Amino acid sequence: METLRLYDFLPSGNGYKIRLLLTQIGMPFERIEVNITKGETRTPEFLSKNPNGKIPLLEIEPGKYLAESNAILVYLSEGTEFLPYDRFLRAQVLQWLFFEQYSHEPFIATSRFLISILGKSEENQEAIKQRREPGYAALKVMENQLTFHTFFVGERYTIADIALFAYTHVAHEGGFDMTQFPAIQAWIERVKSQPGYISIQQE
Amino acid sequence: METLRLYDFLPSGNGYKIRLLLTQIGMPFERIEVNITKGETRTPEFLSKNPNGKIPLLEIEPGKYLAESNAILVYLSEGTEFLPYDRFLRAQVLQWLFFEQYSHEPFIATSRFLISILGKSEENQEAIKQRREPGYAALKVMENQLTFHTFFVGERYTIADIALFAYTHVAHEGGFDMTQFPAIQAWIERVKSQPGYISIQQE
Repeated sequence: METLRLYDFLPSGNGYKIRLLLTQIGMPFERIEVNITKGETRTPEFLSKNPNGKIPLLEIEPGKYLAESNAILVYLSEGTEFLPYDRFLRAQVLQWLFFEQYSHEPFIATSRFLISILGKSEENQEAIKQRREPGYAALKVMENQLTFHTFFVGERYTIADIALFAYTHVAHEGGFDMTQFPAIQAWIERVKSQPGYISIQQE
Repeated sequence: METLRLYDFLPSGNGYKIRLLLTQIGMPFERIEVNITKGETRTPEFLSKNPNGKIPLLEIEPGKYLAESNAILVYLSEGTEFLPYDRFLRAQVLQWLFFEQYSHEPFIATSRFLISILGKSEENQEAIKQRREPGYAALKVMENQLTFHTFFVGERYTIADIALFAYTHVAHEGGFDMTQFPAIQAWIERVKSQPGYISIQQE
């Protein structure tokens, strides 16, 4: 088998999801840094690999690409302990993956991007303000689930946890007050104690 | 087997995805109308079914719920001709499903919602304007793919087409000029000619 190549940007939570899963599965991969703040996902060369111009991008074999972090998570976790085999549990994992991309990431990840990655809070005050209410709404949905469950699906650690952990554990970097979410905080510690855990800045 | 119950809102493209697939599969279901413009997804009763307060919501058996339109599409299409069995093709289907929810729906569907469903273009001029550029960017990614392919994945009609068709074929209701996308227009006709096709306002 070819070595997997991951086009990635180290501060990216979406990239981190893939790094974390691959490390926990124990699958070797080559990481290629693409600096999204310098337009490196907008070059003709990168767009020929992913016309949507985003990382992470997985090169499964030369010229064979897969985009969208959560699609990559599903692809890589099939047949492992990180994706349930049961049809309904697997559907629930997908439900949380779509929740993450639609109701969570656009508010929580982008707030962190503007404040901590770009360091441009002043210029983006309005954009940051608009993201507060839907961001907190997403965190409340998570808190509700984690008040009654140890993990998001089937009381065990799956890619649903990996996907939601990526930007939740750094949500404070986007200005979200996490002290009001004790169940989320306890879950963050449970995720951090999983075998093979690596931090977001760890290559 | 219990009859499936679909909590739905007739003008919703996300709801339409499920209606279309279930009709094409030939699976009977009961449709329960929930008017999102009247706050009916925000009642305590509905929130007890889906804490994220959104339709469509599928009740698989009494008390067993699945949310997120694209997760429902995957759940229902497993083992049918609408979801490829091959692992990489299935991953590509997921890639397009996540693209739809992250890069397409938040701009194209919401423009239509503000303009045609709520009929509040004036009050939302700024919100509509902000959605133009990312909406057209998503349509260009689709046009690029459909210039070289008959359908999104594996040259056959799958749930990736259903998910993207739902809001693309009514994108003009959100003020998008579709005349500049001939490949998308040809694909819309191909989707409409599939066996069992129903329109978005058809119960």
